[in-house]
Amino acid sequence: MLKLYLAPGTCALASHIALAEAGADYTIEKLDFKANQQNSPDYLEINPKGRVPSLVTDRGILTETPAMLAYIAQTFPQAKLAPLDDAFAFAQVQSFNSYLCATVHVAHAHKGRGPRWATEETSFADMKRMVPKSMGACFALIERKMLKGPWVMGETYTICDPYLYTIALWLEGDSVDLAGLPKVADHRKRMAERPAVKKVMAEEKV
Amino acid sequence: MLKLYLAPGTCALASHIALAEAGADYTIEKLDFKANQQNSPDYLEINPKGRVPSLVTDRGILTETPAMLAYIAQTFPQAKLAPLDDAFAFAQVQSFNSYLCATVHVAHAHKGRGPRWATEETSFADMKRMVPKSMGACFALIERKMLKGPWVMGETYTICDPYLYTIALWLEGDSVDLAGLPKVADHRKRMAERPAVKKVMAEEKV
Repeated sequence: MLKLYLAPGTCALASHIALAEAGADYTIEKLDFKANQQNSPDYLEINPKGRVPSLVTDRGILTETPAMLAYIAQTFPQAKLAPLDDAFAFAQVQSFNSYLCATVHVAHAHKGRGPRWATEETSFADMKRMVPKSMGACFALIERKMLKGPWVMGETYTICDPYLYTIALWLEGDSVDLAGLPKVADHRKRMAERPAVKKVMAEEKV
Repeated sequence: MLKLYLAPGTCALASHIALAEAGADYTIEKLDFKANQQNSPDYLEINPKGRVPSLVTDRGILTETPAMLAYIAQTFPQAKLAPLDDAFAFAQVQSFNSYLCATVHVAHAHKGRGPRWATEETSFADMKRMVPKSMGACFALIERKMLKGPWVMGETYTICDPYLYTIALWLEGDSVDLAGLPKVADHRKRMAERPAVKKVMAEEKV
């Protein structure tokens, strides 16, 4: 049995969807970010970084979305969530997910997580003002060069899709206009219709 | 034949070392960051993100260090650079590399890449002042919780090691005191003695 620590509205949604798509036997445990539960002593024992997601397995605890997504794809090969027998195609999947993690999510995080990188209120406000532009540029690149369609990697659904969906849900909050991103908007709609996504969205809302 | 686009002093060093450790047949091409060559039309055709590293393979171009490192490990299995037959152990390797990419490298980047996330000189200065603290916190966590020793994953050298070495080389420039990081300092020294690392450092300097 796998156990996923998450907080609704966070990037943990990507791993949550992947677990559901894989048909994994899992439970979820929600952290209350408003109560700063991610920095409680109990949770820091699970993940000393004080972040979500964390995935408790019978071998130990895993963190970091790209690593967890690849792990889910590899441990549930029958779900065909990644091209496991083709190192180049697998690297393309990983490259996309690494871009989401290290560039796109980081651009978004400057809206509300300024104290990670600066100390002054004026800097936080400046960072926040930049987010529509930086997230807009990231998604323009995804729209033009990366999202093959209908799924990220083309005809085959992979672990890139729940991750893109998760971050694309932040676009309105980041004041990025979806009208300029028809492929991303179509992808989001297509994702929302998947049974696994409906199940997971309901689980996160309860 | 693989071709690696790099710039000396950047995170491309990690993939460069991994190629040498793998015994790969590769060439390197250096970009002049001072001349902004990473944003030239020719290079943007190779990597539209305008970043290094990029790895040209006979199947196409790969970007993003964690993806490239896993690709090198998978395509040169005889070099044993990752636990390829153990999904959990492989995920631990990938988790470490994802942390370096999305948290540690990002903390460092706030020293000189402020315009990615803000517009005001005062914000850039504020971000820059924070780097010794944020990089110090990242490396304190690596020292205490992540670097098993003698290599990152314990007794076996993996693709985590060249990546940690690469980013640890930035510590003095980021005003983080190595005296408080004896395991990291030992790792850096051990890495510098490896024949592949000596070869690569010479190639980047020429």
